[in-house]
Amino acid sequence: MKVTVYGFGSLNYYLNKLRVPERLGGEPPYGGSAMAIEFAKAGYDVTLADPHLEKLPREIVDKVEKAGVKLTTDDVEAAKGAEVAILFTPFRSGITFKVAETIVPHLAENAVICTTCTMSILVLNSYLQNIIFMEGREDIGFSTMHPAAIPGTPQHKHYLIATNELLKKPIVTQEQIDNLKNLAIDAGKKVYLLPAELVSAVGDMGIITTAIAFTGAVEYYRIARDVLKTKRSMTEFQIAQSLQVVSSIVARYGFAGLIKLLNVDAMKDSLKSMILEKNEQPLTVTAVDILEKIGELIPEVLEEAEKFEPSDSVYMSAPSPMLVEYMEDLVGDDVLKGILRESWKKFYEGISERD
Amino acid sequence: MKVTVYGFGSLNYYLNKLRVPERLGGEPPYGGSAMAIEFAKAGYDVTLADPHLEKLPREIVDKVEKAGVKLTTDDVEAAKGAEVAILFTPFRSGITFKVAETIVPHLAENAVICTTCTMSILVLNSYLQNIIFMEGREDIGFSTMHPAAIPGTPQHKHYLIATNELLKKPIVTQEQIDNLKNLAIDAGKKVYLLPAELVSAVGDMGIITTAIAFTGAVEYYRIARDVLKTKRSMTEFQIAQSLQVVSSIVARYGFAGLIKLLNVDAMKDSLKSMILEKNEQPLTVTAVDILEKIGELIPEVLEEAEKFEPSDSVYMSAPSPMLVEYMEDLVGDDVLKGILRESWKKFYEGISERD
Repeated sequence: MKVTVYGFGSLNYYLNKLRVPERLGGEPPYGGSAMAIEFAKAGYDVTLADPHLEKLPREIVDKVEKAGVKLTTDDVEAAKGAEVAILFTPFRSGITFKVAETIVPHLAENAVICTTCTMSILVLNSYLQNIIFMEGREDIGFSTMHPAAIPGTPQHKHYLIATNELLKKPIVTQEQIDNLKNLAIDAGKKVYLLPAELVSAVGDMGIITTAIAFTGAVEYYRIARDVLKTKRSMTEFQIAQSLQVVSSIVARYGFAGLIKLLNVDAMKDSLKSMILEKNEQPLTVTAVDILEKIGELIPEVLEEAEKFEPSDSVYMSAPSPMLVEYMEDLVGDDVLKGILRESWKKFYEGISERD
Repeated sequence: MKVTVYGFGSLNYYLNKLRVPERLGGEPPYGGSAMAIEFAKAGYDVTLADPHLEKLPREIVDKVEKAGVKLTTDDVEAAKGAEVAILFTPFRSGITFKVAETIVPHLAENAVICTTCTMSILVLNSYLQNIIFMEGREDIGFSTMHPAAIPGTPQHKHYLIATNELLKKPIVTQEQIDNLKNLAIDAGKKVYLLPAELVSAVGDMGIITTAIAFTGAVEYYRIARDVLKTKRSMTEFQIAQSLQVVSSIVARYGFAGLIKLLNVDAMKDSLKSMILEKNEQPLTVTAVDILEKIGELIPEVLEEAEKFEPSDSVYMSAPSPMLVEYMEDLVGDDVLKGILRESWKKFYEGISERD
């Protein structure tokens, strides 16, 4: 099976900015090139495409070649006959879109395009609808080979593969998923199958936020069950409402807006009244501590928050999935998809503007 | 100024279920009656209305009366001439709606109705629109005297008062807010003014979830700033996306659905790769620990999760405030309000059905 990986992985970022060898271990290269090495060693026919190969240190490129990986700067050449195309292209979304559009006409029949930690597969799938239709390439599937860690580090022991679960219209066939599973397993990795829409929340760097929110919900659930003895529906309502509000404020007004609007002192006083079984509430206790010293932790954001004024008003606690259902009843699935695309675009552009 | 508090506060719940004296201190009564005592001691003309007064222990009722609080079982009598009406009525929302509807015609001119920890003021305000219009009582304001703690415990040192911030149409006047501020301050409490839509997320029991998610965002922000060195917009995008997904799944599929769909093992493996500066990530480290032993902590939910199958599909990551903005452009503010009401109703009913 021919596998092509797009994007070497930024040596500068991994070595100089993130200092991966000291922090996480392993040795360069990291990222897409480390994935390519693994797959080649597992016996696959692997090509790695990157436009900046000639700028990379010779000894590291040699390492990749010696593992049996073919290197090229030509995206189209690399795509020809590829049954799996993995995009480890940069975060800036324009590049990933462009590479994907370029390669669609050249991939093998029934090929599968996979995103990694740099782009949601649903966003890419939605973006490529036009070219898929124009080229008559409905045979191409969409999934992920999300490393959920930095390839090349000892922490990278798994791949998250996106399935059709929760989707109305499938984006990938069972055969394509099986190909990806085999590729991961042959490379010695564990496979997690996840609904396509949830892969980013679990695999991206934001897993810090996802997992802390999730375990915070577990901690609250246990206190509600054992101490507050409130109904399960009340617990779930409070969890969904709290996280919706925090998410909405960040999406709409950014991090400084969050701090200004939620009021750190009010949260602290309110939270202290909810320490009911200290030993069972490690996250709550730590959260109080973080709220106490927030001025030392993120002084620059507190300063921004001082000056923050919401420009205009929008509802912050409306539960997203119910809004979506309501709209679907109203306008049908096709228009809904357009509305969702627009909403994601607004979301992303709004956040980028604040940079 | 005449102040009426509705709802004594459940002695059975506070003493036998929650065991407040052992856990938090103070002595009975707790809840609405404790608020009434404070306000009376501060010199206000205070009435406490509760339908079940005769079932309460005599010595506790005496304590309330000795503080100067008038007691009655007649909601209408209690409403006559009241300038502040505080609803400490039970969680079950039907009761709070009914009491509020009953008292609207009898309140003093420019009175303000306040909810506490048992209901969102915006939900109540929206529910009462009909009777307000029928009775021509647009003079009545809506806010909160949210204790964000159990009144009668030493932790209760503050009130959260809801403002018009973030709302398109005001629900309360400055004079009404000033009355509430004075009431709180005269009772020796600190005042926090918060946008009406955010009071529940900060003051309710769900503050555990809100504060852990918030401090989790702070922890991720700092790692992104100091270690990952990613752009601020990327950080905010990840925070908003992660919390939206967790909130959406709980709202749509409940807690068991959350556990099944997010995949605890995948989260754990992904999270471990994000421990980059252990000492600066106390929440992340604790989250890993909770994920490790989740089987002991909430075995009954894991069992449910095993059997969980999503009944149908809906998008989980659509950012709520952008959907709302899009809809407002499409249908205008009035229809939007109706859609939001319906969405909240669907949300609440869906969660209650799972009880």
